[in-house]
Amino acid sequence: VERQQAPERFFRSRWAQPPGGVEELDPDRLAPGFRAGGAHCGLKGGGKTDVGLVVCDSEDVRSALLLTRNASAAAPIRVCREVTTRDRIRAAVVNSGNANAETGKKGYEDAFEMCRRAASALNVDTASVAVAETGTIGVPLPIDNVLIGIDEAASRLDPNGGGTFSDAILTTDRWPKRCTLRAGSVTLSAQAKGAGMIEPGFATMLCFVQTDAVVEDPDAALREAVAGSFERITVDGQMSTNDTVLLQATGAAGVPVPPGLLEAVLLQLAIEIVADGEGAARACRVEVSGAASAAEAERVARAIANSPLVKTALFGRDPNWGRIAQAAGQALAGEDLEEIGADSIDAAELGAETQEAEIGLRLRRGEHNAHVWFSDLGYEYVRINAEYTT
Amino acid sequence: VERQQAPERFFRSRWAQPPGGVEELDPDRLAPGFRAGGAHCGLKGGGKTDVGLVVCDSEDVRSALLLTRNASAAAPIRVCREVTTRDRIRAAVVNSGNANAETGKKGYEDAFEMCRRAASALNVDTASVAVAETGTIGVPLPIDNVLIGIDEAASRLDPNGGGTFSDAILTTDRWPKRCTLRAGSVTLSAQAKGAGMIEPGFATMLCFVQTDAVVEDPDAALREAVAGSFERITVDGQMSTNDTVLLQATGAAGVPVPPGLLEAVLLQLAIEIVADGEGAARACRVEVSGAASAAEAERVARAIANSPLVKTALFGRDPNWGRIAQAAGQALAGEDLEEIGADSIDAAELGAETQEAEIGLRLRRGEHNAHVWFSDLGYEYVRINAEYTT
Repeated sequence: VERQQAPERFFRSRWAQPPGGVEELDPDRLAPGFRAGGAHCGLKGGGKTDVGLVVCDSEDVRSALLLTRNASAAAPIRVCREVTTRDRIRAAVVNSGNANAETGKKGYEDAFEMCRRAASALNVDTASVAVAETGTIGVPLPIDNVLIGIDEAASRLDPNGGGTFSDAILTTDRWPKRCTLRAGSVTLSAQAKGAGMIEPGFATMLCFVQTDAVVEDPDAALREAVAGSFERITVDGQMSTNDTVLLQATGAAGVPVPPGLLEAVLLQLAIEIVADGEGAARACRVEVSGAASAAEAERVARAIANSPLVKTALFGRDPNWGRIAQAAGQALAGEDLEEIGADSIDAAELGAETQEAEIGLRLRRGEHNAHVWFSDLGYEYVRINAEYTT
Repeated sequence: VERQQAPERFFRSRWAQPPGGVEELDPDRLAPGFRAGGAHCGLKGGGKTDVGLVVCDSEDVRSALLLTRNASAAAPIRVCREVTTRDRIRAAVVNSGNANAETGKKGYEDAFEMCRRAASALNVDTASVAVAETGTIGVPLPIDNVLIGIDEAASRLDPNGGGTFSDAILTTDRWPKRCTLRAGSVTLSAQAKGAGMIEPGFATMLCFVQTDAVVEDPDAALREAVAGSFERITVDGQMSTNDTVLLQATGAAGVPVPPGLLEAVLLQLAIEIVADGEGAARACRVEVSGAASAAEAERVARAIANSPLVKTALFGRDPNWGRIAQAAGQALAGEDLEEIGADSIDAAELGAETQEAEIGLRLRRGEHNAHVWFSDLGYEYVRINAEYTT
């Protein structure tokens, strides 16, 4: 992967608009009360940072942790499910280059050992350390090297370690996905990595958010923000074995996160993941309106977003409304959409020169809406996924 | 599309094995009691046959007709649903080059007019004529030309018209899909067209079967054979607006179709459709065993067959068992497949040089099995679907 520079501005999608008065800071700088560090332990080539730690200095941290529901979940997901105290996470230990997925009992022990070593180095409880891994699957983790890397990362913790921690989670991302934002007396920092194919494995998304704001119910806040962002995107309809989102909040600022800011941050990161997904060239938002129920709106929107015919039309800049009608008709198989026609479908932006396109479908069956963001499907998707051979 | 010659042998897939004593005849020759004809009316370029008729000489014909369940069904599907007497179909009128889909009320009238003109030319009831169309969508049918073509086709009906009728339904198929078979005193002829992208439209499959055998319950016989063939294939998970399968039987031979023959014919045709699907280079059969229920087995098999990661691995000849575990895990999201590992997955043939690959997954959750055939996903899929621009 040719890594690109981080973009100048964080909020640049037409779809992710933060509340007013938000200032973008250097993304190396973490929210007050957090430090991070990284090291190279040999999982990735070229001396790249592949193990990292982020830790909250305060015992009073509140947290929320969301994990993939994939039934073939990776070892770190299982450890988080079974061991981690999700609402009191002090630290996260991460590695990239090896997903520790489909690695059996030994993989589980390795992921647990990562938590234990991080806890020991940081002098916190093992149950307060979350573990996240991304990279090759089905390959045993070289655990001894990873443990040495954890010690190294722990010796380099720094309040300006945001960039290093972000580097520690990247795999095939073309650019880093991170920000530090100030809104009034609150600071929020975030680091994410996107869905890029890792030889020979999966596309995983990871996201870590730190703030000094007061978050009364972190689980509810995170679920709500994720529902409007990471749960509304699709690259290829595939659910990863390793997806993880962690929110940590110290409350030291004494005030809550400004309304809409967490959602806007996660949405910008989600759109970056779509725009950087599997060789993607374009991102698209589809809005389905007039559905008979919320579930129906959702089903139709996802059918359109995951249709390879719509995705190739997005790639080929073809305003092909017929493919939208076909996908909707498939989602509602057995019913009759006789009245759908060109005048119910906005497909013009499929054919536009823009990087971000919006399309719409009016069903005239009721009052319910849903929207989903998705990436195009082009030659790069095939190249990335077909040419990495085990 | 560079059209290839019809293959020498009809039954050549490792998966479609006919009962013993089946002889392959010239596919121009229809089953006794049937005639067919075709004409060029200008829907396709280069003077190609684009309108056709197949008709049973006997009033005693029994039939069954299966139609797509897509809620955005094309006009000919709506006419067949509303007008045609499905168990007494004397004739089918077809065209290729225009799907007559998303064409509104006028499209419906045009499809009905095709039935009426064919009925008049053949001196049969309008309700005894099925209509099927395939090709461009969202484009009005040049109905006057089509009606002239129907008259021409009716004037050229021939017991050796199988090849001509087959030509009349082809769009982007790289090779014709047809056969005439004799088993004892029974003859069975069939013509199909596959899922190939038609600018700027959909992938449609059509199939017509004629026989002089006795078929007591044509609807049950056809449903059973389709359940094991056309309903077990996927090219890109997309359900067409125009899919149609018609079986006509005269009963003149006085004996039934040999057990397994109809299934074997439809399966060979289905596999041809997969192997010729959207630029496909390889076909694959996935078998999921040990599922807790039939529905679970089906869900997991389809998740694997429709996973773009598995399909690109098939294209890239990558024996990537991790992608099979991931797709299965997604299909069973919220459950735990901890015990799935490399030893539960047969993925070696993904990486083999064969044109037809078999892969397997043992779930160890129960006694239920399911299998699906699917095509690979390669550069040609993207080229075909992205580069046809409206």
